[in-house]
Amino acid sequence: MTSTPAEICLHVCITCREAGGPDDKALRPGAILHRTLTEALAQPGAPAVRVEAVECLSVCKRPCTIAVSGPGRWTYIYGDLNAETSVETILDGLRRYAATSDGLVPWRERPEAFRKGVVARIPPFKTSSAA
Amino acid sequence: MTSTPAEICLHVCITCREAGGPDDKALRPGAILHRTLTEALAQPGAPAVRVEAVECLSVCKRPCTIAVSGPGRWTYIYGDLNAETSVETILDGLRRYAATSDGLVPWRERPEAFRKGVVARIPPFKTSSAA
Repeated sequence: MTSTPAEICLHVCITCREAGGPDDKALRPGAILHRTLTEALAQPGAPAVRVEAVECLSVCKRPCTIAVSGPGRWTYIYGDLNAETSVETILDGLRRYAATSDGLVPWRERPEAFRKGVVARIPPFKTSSAA
Repeated sequence: MTSTPAEICLHVCITCREAGGPDDKALRPGAILHRTLTEALAQPGAPAVRVEAVECLSVCKRPCTIAVSGPGRWTYIYGDLNAETSVETILDGLRRYAATSDGLVPWRERPEAFRKGVVARIPPFKTSSAA
């Protein structure tokens, strides 16, 4: 089972606050990361990924957090990302993910922040009819 | 978007070892949990859930770990479960999950082990055509 890159989805949690950080929702790290990634992924040459803000990925102790998923692909959740310094890393990771048919990027080829920041992964969902 | 309970999938990580635990794969906690849940979910009256073993959910520091998913539903990943004492809790949580159309069980109605053990959650995947 394969999917086109256009079906890949990047969820970005926009809710988590940093300790001592601003309460203003628009200034929270995840909200900033979401805006930056949305702009970056709209540029020519960016991987074809749909970005969606999500209120909570339940990884509240490890902001910023993101999830990458696509039909027929493993879903990966990453935490401990930085709204400013992790953008290029995330774009690199998305490019590698998009280049696979199943979402499995070999360990050595993953950006270091993705190796250290992985929170969980889930196999592609098989429907009963496809099982 | 709704789905039938029969489409709900429970992934159980069978790989993690306990510190000092047996190396034999069949005796690892997740493998035991997988067998127990497979038997329990085959009983009359059990929630209609497909059980699948998975080699690694990348939550290696919090065994046993499981993931619950279904089309149109939020996916939840739980850790810190016990192969012997968590079975009833998991069955209870699955029943509540199956009773929703979107996978969102109100916080107060979740088993305590699911509240404390939540590792992450991911929104239902929307395909481009449905977005």
